[in-house]
Amino acid sequence: MALLVLKFGGTSVGDVDKIRNVAAHVKREVDAGHACAVVVSAMAGQTNTLVGFVEEAWRSTLAKQGENGAVDYDAREYDAVVSSGEQVTSGLLAIVLQAHGVRARSWQGWQIPMITDGAHRSARIKGVNVEGLKARIMDGEVAVVAGFQGLAPDNRISTLGRGGSDTSAIALAAALNADRCDIYTDVDGVYTTDPRVVPKAHRLDRISYEEMLEMASQGAKVLQTRSVELAMQKGVRVLVRSSFDPPDLAGRTGPGAVLGTLVCHEDEIVEQNVVSGIAYARDEAKVTLLKIADKPGVAAQVFCPLAEANINVDMIVQNVSEDGRYTDLTFTVQSADFDRALEVLKRAKDSIGYFDLRGSTDIAKVSAIGVGMRSHAGVAAQMFSALAEKGINIEAISTSEIKISVLIDAAYAELAVRTLHSLFGLDGR
Amino acid sequence: MALLVLKFGGTSVGDVDKIRNVAAHVKREVDAGHACAVVVSAMAGQTNTLVGFVEEAWRSTLAKQGENGAVDYDAREYDAVVSSGEQVTSGLLAIVLQAHGVRARSWQGWQIPMITDGAHRSARIKGVNVEGLKARIMDGEVAVVAGFQGLAPDNRISTLGRGGSDTSAIALAAALNADRCDIYTDVDGVYTTDPRVVPKAHRLDRISYEEMLEMASQGAKVLQTRSVELAMQKGVRVLVRSSFDPPDLAGRTGPGAVLGTLVCHEDEIVEQNVVSGIAYARDEAKVTLLKIADKPGVAAQVFCPLAEANINVDMIVQNVSEDGRYTDLTFTVQSADFDRALEVLKRAKDSIGYFDLRGSTDIAKVSAIGVGMRSHAGVAAQMFSALAEKGINIEAISTSEIKISVLIDAAYAELAVRTLHSLFGLDGR
Repeated sequence: MALLVLKFGGTSVGDVDKIRNVAAHVKREVDAGHACAVVVSAMAGQTNTLVGFVEEAWRSTLAKQGENGAVDYDAREYDAVVSSGEQVTSGLLAIVLQAHGVRARSWQGWQIPMITDGAHRSARIKGVNVEGLKARIMDGEVAVVAGFQGLAPDNRISTLGRGGSDTSAIALAAALNADRCDIYTDVDGVYTTDPRVVPKAHRLDRISYEEMLEMASQGAKVLQTRSVELAMQKGVRVLVRSSFDPPDLAGRTGPGAVLGTLVCHEDEIVEQNVVSGIAYARDEAKVTLLKIADKPGVAAQVFCPLAEANINVDMIVQNVSEDGRYTDLTFTVQSADFDRALEVLKRAKDSIGYFDLRGSTDIAKVSAIGVGMRSHAGVAAQMFSALAEKGINIEAISTSEIKISVLIDAAYAELAVRTLHSLFGLDGR
Repeated sequence: MALLVLKFGGTSVGDVDKIRNVAAHVKREVDAGHACAVVVSAMAGQTNTLVGFVEEAWRSTLAKQGENGAVDYDAREYDAVVSSGEQVTSGLLAIVLQAHGVRARSWQGWQIPMITDGAHRSARIKGVNVEGLKARIMDGEVAVVAGFQGLAPDNRISTLGRGGSDTSAIALAAALNADRCDIYTDVDGVYTTDPRVVPKAHRLDRISYEEMLEMASQGAKVLQTRSVELAMQKGVRVLVRSSFDPPDLAGRTGPGAVLGTLVCHEDEIVEQNVVSGIAYARDEAKVTLLKIADKPGVAAQVFCPLAEANINVDMIVQNVSEDGRYTDLTFTVQSADFDRALEVLKRAKDSIGYFDLRGSTDIAKVSAIGVGMRSHAGVAAQMFSALAEKGINIEAISTSEIKISVLIDAAYAELAVRTLHSLFGLDGR
């Protein structure tokens, strides 16, 4: 018997029929003798509807009064409204499970409680009080937990930010000391790259936390970055698997029957490729400052105002100065922040002292990721050569111990992904 | 400065535009210097949608399994799902008020807490812990309270049964020792009778608790019976008023500017008619047992199985026995319970021992209500004569100290209401 946490996202609980499918998955695990907690998101679209209500309530009222709407709405009230979506699905799944003859009980964030900090709308989980909950789970009652929410120190509902249900599930699995946290989603695992770009992409049986973290940060949408960080920190084994494969109601016949990708410590991965996956992202934009002074303190003049405006900077490239006086500085920001970043830099032109400001959203970032890089030299060289052979110009490079990212013209994104996927032996199997 | 509780029903908060209208009403009271708590229902239709989800989750799952669905779904989970509707509107109203520059904060039943008994789905309020809440209200913060819900002893959300937001408002007003509880609704007060039936019906300025209770029980839908009982018991002054009259944003100019009907102690009502209003109801059905034994214990044989099946019996008429051996028994039940009542009685035929069982849903109950009846003899006689003059046959009669109800053929309902409205001097003014 194992203690499992199962997490189902919005598309998996999109209507009562789909919730029935979720219940079949849960019942299969219960029938196999496992103790289960289930974390659910809101019905697909429901969170957007609720956020829409909040924004309409705030902005159209201000508009009618002729004010500018600069101050944002109260995050506590946003949390009260938006958390109701998960409340509904948790109750409905409990009822469907009961109709299936499975003992079940719903739990809201405030009932457990799932304790968070006071950062309403983007709260972080501080702890989960699982004492009473665990006793009931071990006694065979399925705990259906509303994801995405907790209780803040002000005794008010807090939400964890979009996609926070993954984090709820991992935090709960850690607190329960669960054997595994199964993230049910609309794909059957983590792929070597996006199968829409590379048909030869294949599902990985296992991936290390570090690789998954880089994959998530570099554009793979299958798991939320924060939840992977938390899983790594707490050592929670995470299985990414499909909610749509027909549940085997007779119970699993063996470990081979479980599809999906296990996210785990790299020690658990026997055969390790040098590169495990190729990720790409198109939601970044490039900003270049031409001819800025090549002296200490200039970088701070550039990046402090951006940080103050809450704009995250990703890749940074500073060319070597030719004459020791002026240099060019290139960096990337999220596309959504691009216009704001240009504005901030225009306002700061005098204090920075640059000659010209240029930018483009027509770029892509392509990354090769693998813990095997640590012990294999020359991966970067291989990668740059292969791209050069295809005539792909590299505009910027950033690396970590287990990742090499290059910034290229967006038009070459697919070509680059396919080239690297093939280069590192990931095609077919 | 007064402390007011304002309650808005589902049609008043049906969308964000309507919630803005509610906020304008609240702001008017705040600007007039009053301390305010606001109780809100779910958006119109939302509760039905949520109940529909619950029923779908329960019944269709059972249907798929081929079971009969006889056992009902878990009331705790129903409460978790359905209470989310009020959670949404309370948060949205708080945001709209804030956008209007009014300090406001939402409160869920579990946050106050509004303490109820453990009868999930039809809980009764046991007490309201208003200590912290009242301090904030008196300090000028509007408390926006989710109606219809509380916290049961099992630390789970409880709901009060349909229409329970009126009860939430009255209970909160009592606990806060509020000067008045304003029930905003889609009519501008309590009328002498249904204006759709009698165009000459007029709004009452005041009505006593006892009369309001009878009006509510006898079919007037403006206030929930339980909430009137609670208001009477706690001495809460209730003002029934329209949420659609344009709010006077400059503040009220005097007591004359407040339309509506004040429900209060009869001592507060200076000029009292003998009859204050005529109510009618069409949702009852008549059941007649022919030739039952005229001996002690037979009534128990009839009504005990009905009570066990949770079927409420209203009017009961037993004819005088002609031969001392057999008699007929007629009574009414809610139309919704009619088929079940017949079934129960058929199953109990042997123990009761009746000759035949008859029933009809084609009946109406018409009631004249007024505390003035206590001191005026002959009201019943006047009423029966007037109906007889119009050729209306009375099938059953029930009376209380302040009410006379007659059961008649449904076809004569409007005629009877108009006749009595005129008879007791309620036409025009």
